[in-house]
Amino acid sequence: MISSHAVVESSEIGANTRIQEFAVIRAGAKIGANVVIHPHVVIGDGVEIGDGVEIFPGAVIGKEPKGAGALSRTPVFERLVRIGNNSSIGPHAVIYYDVRIGENSLIGDGASIREQCTIGNKTVIGRQVTINYNVRIGNSVKIMDNSWMAGNMDIRDGAFISGGVFTSNDNEIGKHGYSDAHVLGPIIEEGAMIGVGAKLLPNIVIGKNAVVGAGSVVTKSVEAETVVMGVPAKFVRKIS
Amino acid sequence: MISSHAVVESSEIGANTRIQEFAVIRAGAKIGANVVIHPHVVIGDGVEIGDGVEIFPGAVIGKEPKGAGALSRTPVFERLVRIGNNSSIGPHAVIYYDVRIGENSLIGDGASIREQCTIGNKTVIGRQVTINYNVRIGNSVKIMDNSWMAGNMDIRDGAFISGGVFTSNDNEIGKHGYSDAHVLGPIIEEGAMIGVGAKLLPNIVIGKNAVVGAGSVVTKSVEAETVVMGVPAKFVRKIS
Amino acid sequence: MISSHAVVESSEIGANTRIQEFAVIRAGAKIGANVVIHPHVVIGDGVEIGDGVEIFPGAVIGKEPKGAGALSRTPVFERLVRIGNNSSIGPHAVIYYDVRIGENSLIGDGASIREQCTIGNKTVIGRQVTINYNVRIGNSVKIMDNSWMAGNMDIRDGAFISGGVFTSNDNEIGKHGYSDAHVLGPIIEEGAMIGVGAKLLPNIVIGKNAVVGAGSVVTKSVEAETVVMGVPAKFVRKIS
Repeated sequence: MISSHAVVESSEIGANTRIQEFAVIRAGAKIGANVVIHPHVVIGDGVEIGDGVEIFPGAVIGKEPKGAGALSRTPVFERLVRIGNNSSIGPHAVIYYDVRIGENSLIGDGASIREQCTIGNKTVIGRQVTINYNVRIGNSVKIMDNSWMAGNMDIRDGAFISGGVFTSNDNEIGKHGYSDAHVLGPIIEEGAMIGVGAKLLPNIVIGKNAVVGAGSVVTKSVEAETVVMGVPAKFVRKIS
Repeated sequence: MISSHAVVESSEIGANTRIQEFAVIRAGAKIGANVVIHPHVVIGDGVEIGDGVEIFPGAVIGKEPKGAGALSRTPVFERLVRIGNNSSIGPHAVIYYDVRIGENSLIGDGASIREQCTIGNKTVIGRQVTINYNVRIGNSVKIMDNSWMAGNMDIRDGAFISGGVFTSNDNEIGKHGYSDAHVLGPIIEEGAMIGVGAKLLPNIVIGKNAVVGAGSVVTKSVEAETVVMGVPAKFVRKIS
Repeated sequence: MISSHAVVESSEIGANTRIQEFAVIRAGAKIGANVVIHPHVVIGDGVEIGDGVEIFPGAVIGKEPKGAGALSRTPVFERLVRIGNNSSIGPHAVIYYDVRIGENSLIGDGASIREQCTIGNKTVIGRQVTINYNVRIGNSVKIMDNSWMAGNMDIRDGAFISGGVFTSNDNEIGKHGYSDAHVLGPIIEEGAMIGVGAKLLPNIVIGKNAVVGAGSVVTKSVEAETVVMGVPAKFVRKIS
């Protein structure tokens, strides 16, 4: 079930696993049973893939963060990726090192998951979504396509974030570089819903089951069970 | 004209067609004449490519929708893709199964076209655009880069959608899952123009030749030949 | 250091350069010393890569612009790409022909850089960003993830553009096609900061060190050292 056109340096490949053409599996990667690895996938050393996972063409699992002299922040990471049973990684998605993904989760086409991130079970990360460094995402969360989660966020169980939502972790818009001392991404609590195209500014909390209307710019914290909307977002009503 | 480094399982390859290195063409795919297939392209079974088509590196044609246990909606699809003569598919674009694309159309870099979509002739889908499931797009439509079209939309001939436009098909922002009973993407009629970064909410119609200003949030239907703008979008003037 | 699974037609490969599996390097490309080219990269003829550059999996360097009969604008380009020393190109990024990138710059995952663009030194272009044709970007500029820069823009030294920022180069929203006669992207002067999710309309100048608030829609020029915000953006204060 391993294509003769693939390069498989690892010897830890589970039963019934299929590795297709032109995939590259580095030595030290561990692949479970009943996994499907499509063509042109790259899996680095230190990556552990659970049973029943499917990885679509061109996905890259285990990318080193890279500064290139242009970033003020030096990336810190552990050389490890874990992907839980029955999760799925879309075509051209990029999973950096130091990422843990739970079971039955889905990472969309072209999504980027940065270093120091944790993603729970039954969670969906949409197409082209970027999850920046050091973000904790719970179970049964949905983050829809083209949304962008800043570094240092918490996104709790059952939160729903629609498409094109952008968050920020720096009141000075990043001009003076990113240091952990002054940045804090928004916190999105259990069951909160963020409407399409909303923007969330730093150092705020979106409370449990709160609702942020489409296109809103949220500049301060939103209480639990509360609806806000507008630019800037204002109180609309409590959810009874 | 077929690289010895490609894997070509199909025997239905037209005259003067070039298949480059590390491409994978599955058995049952049909490729026309004068086609160029760049390196690292994957073409599934059931895909039919017309004459003169160019498919750029890393594009994936014929992807199965995937639920992974995390989505409430079970994907439905026919195992078929048709791409008309002289169309072009950008690098890393992903065309799901059950998609028909007309002639002389262009799909941009990294775009995702989901199952049950139809795209007409001379239509441009920009970079990183996602077209969700069951969307009908007419002829000579332009959808610019990074825009996101919800499921169940109609986008009619000559409509122009600028970059970063997001649409929604669910008033409850998707929290309760997607069932066909309560969702309906916006309808964009002939010649309508949607400005950069606008958001369109569900169950609305943007009338013929209407214009939506940049950054607007459109919460109700817009009549034909009418300009609206703002958050929420309000009437500005009729187009004489 | 050249994988036997790569296709290397060029003979101009510098010392200590590593070319990994399933990469394709066309004849006429020139690669410097101490370069790392990851799997599945495609490098066209006419591409010149400096010393110490790293190119991540699936990146495409040297793509021809393509009209496919669907675009009113015929692409013009020189068949050349230059990437300066110690720069880095992310996975699945696409660099078109006729692009110059300086030293120590970083191009993010899946970014597209169109023809006739120039990018300076120590500049960061984020994930999934599109830089359209004929854009000049200075040194130490940051354009964060998922932003979209229209054609014909100038972005000067030290400018900071946050995530999800969209710009426009056509007051008629592109409906009547793009001709160089009537389009002009915004100009962003030295040190200006554009907040997350802002939209900038055509034919405007954002002055030196000006600040545009998150989610703003900027419809007219902003003076130097000035803060604006809102939809449409209005004067807030001078920066002392």
